Amino acid sequence: MPETTPKQDVFIGVDFGGTKLLAGVFDPQLRLLGTEKISTKGERGVDTVLDRIARVVRDAVDECDLTLKQVRGIGIGAAGAVDPVAGKVLFAPNLRWENIPLKKELEKRLDVPVFVENDCNACTLGVYERQLKGKYRHLVGLFLGTGIGGGLILDGKLYGGATGSAGEVGHMVLEASSEQKCGCGNRGCFEALASRTAMFRQIKEGVKKGEKTVLTEMLGPDLADMRSGDLRKAIRKGDKFVAKIVADAAFYTGVAVANLINAFNPEAVVLGGGVIDALEDEMMSIIVEVAKDYAMPSLGKAAEIIAAEDADNVGIIGGAVLARRETK
Amino acid sequence: MPETTPKQDVFIGVDFGGTKLLAGVFDPQLRLLGTEKISTKGERGVDTVLDRIARVVRDAVDECDLTLKQVRGIGIGAAGAVDPVAGKVLFAPNLRWENIPLKKELEKRLDVPVFVENDCNACTLGVYERQLKGKYRHLVGLFLGTGIGGGLILDGKLYGGATGSAGEVGHMVLEASSEQKCGCGNRGCFEALASRTAMFRQIKEGVKKGEKTVLTEMLGPDLADMRSGDLRKAIRKGDKFVAKIVADAAFYTGVAVANLINAFNPEAVVLGGGVIDALEDEMMSIIVEVAKDYAMPSLGKAAEIIAAEDADNVGIIGGAVLARRETK
Repeated sequence: MPETTPKQDVFIGVDFGGTKLLAGVFDPQLRLLGTEKISTKGERGVDTVLDRIARVVRDAVDECDLTLKQVRGIGIGAAGAVDPVAGKVLFAPNLRWENIPLKKELEKRLDVPVFVENDCNACTLGVYERQLKGKYRHLVGLFLGTGIGGGLILDGKLYGGATGSAGEVGHMVLEASSEQKCGCGNRGCFEALASRTAMFRQIKEGVKKGEKTVLTEMLGPDLADMRSGDLRKAIRKGDKFVAKIVADAAFYTGVAVANLINAFNPEAVVLGGGVIDALEDEMMSIIVEVAKDYAMPSLGKAAEIIAAEDADNVGIIGGAVLARRETK
Repeated sequence: MPETTPKQDVFIGVDFGGTKLLAGVFDPQLRLLGTEKISTKGERGVDTVLDRIARVVRDAVDECDLTLKQVRGIGIGAAGAVDPVAGKVLFAPNLRWENIPLKKELEKRLDVPVFVENDCNACTLGVYERQLKGKYRHLVGLFLGTGIGGGLILDGKLYGGATGSAGEVGHMVLEASSEQKCGCGNRGCFEALASRTAMFRQIKEGVKKGEKTVLTEMLGPDLADMRSGDLRKAIRKGDKFVAKIVADAAFYTGVAVANLINAFNPEAVVLGGGVIDALEDEMMSIIVEVAKDYAMPSLGKAAEIIAAEDADNVGIIGGAVLARRETK
């Protein structure tokens, strides 16, 4: 009997963040067929979030006129410390998750193989697939948002190190004698100097001390609901106070990029995340200039420093790469 | 006709430093059969140094009652920027070498295959072979001397990055706002804060400002011919000024180790080089304490932080590992 035409197999990538859940459906060539987005609702507890991840996957599949039976694998990038082998979220402070068997719980709900990675690793896989595969084999991904994280492609493969946590670059110390305390308890971490949290803290402290900024006109005196995009708007209105804070963050990001270039000798450092998305024009030229200045000349010359393309989707692309790799 | 018993094949490792040349002869199981050491005489120019490397190899082989025909390969660890593929020393500031075809010149002189690596990479290979192979697959080697350099074993293999220069950790910025200028032109590099050069500079500056130290009694007011071992002697005589400078260097080394642990997630960081050899008792406990404090907890827990064993020989062992690997 002749083989029947196999039904289309698809892969799902899930970007599991503290505020939103994004699922994307991809064909075997990793072309995006459709997406679905809902809020995370972390405050409602672990079971609700697990149910919502299952729901956003089901909805995305349904939107593409497919069924879960056609899904060969689901790859999830989750914020926090992750054990990819066990498929567990070890520690996600934003959600107050500890030791949650994400893979097992979702496989129970969806009956499809699930694979878990750290969100920055997944984004780095996505950047590599989307933008740089075939061109480079050594890549550092660097993502600036509420926190800062990184991912490494070495010799063409995601590098996890001894326990899957390589690339924890947000806590690289850049100013050992700094006064800026980091959430991790140390001082002078990259994240304490250049994340969105760090910039917002500096802005709020400045306003308290009487610094003038158009942000208070835009958002009110307590700067409620401030977002990275507001910083861009303020700078474009000529706000020198905000411009200085963003330029300082870009300087430290450049120093961090130089440290990473000297350590890893990559062909590219790709920057992404909410801060870079919102402030690319304001930050990237400073980052590149400082990084080239601080990196060893031959290493700096060997490394391209660029912003991630298709930034909204690199997380789900990376998840799909993971799912395809693991089900081969 | 029955095959004759094959003659013993050996490998040579050469540690090519700015002041001394050390060659070691190793059997195929990398047991050391004999060594030979002469001074480099870099001031006499490139050809003299090349001749002297050839000489130290010949002498080492002769001392072991062997001939060059029995040597299967020679591996050299050379200070400076090296292109391992081309077998060239790209830039060695101490010797004022630029673009010297070390492999080609030595093969001409010795008629044996020669393989070139950066000295810190060779030492890392040596540490791995001597001390940690079979135990670990992910290792950072960190060597503190006149300068500071590193090497990486990732997934059980030496990792060179895009152009063979990965592990340039001496120029990792740890104090971006520091006043301490580095030889590379930047400020706040690890090497400007914790190398022998950095400690000696701080001691000399202090003495000029009137600080009291037993070093002036030991070495005279201009601190001529000061060596790392003198710092150990001074500390053991109760010299608080020297103790503080060494403790500060150990603090920065601990911060650097934490940064490397967070970036690479290794199973071990191994410290070696002249500074650690001389000041292991004074520095290692501080380094370990600070590194564990600054590393992310799960990553810090996963990484052993230890001093290199058999420190005098890790360079030649690494050279022999390289020669054996490349002639397989």
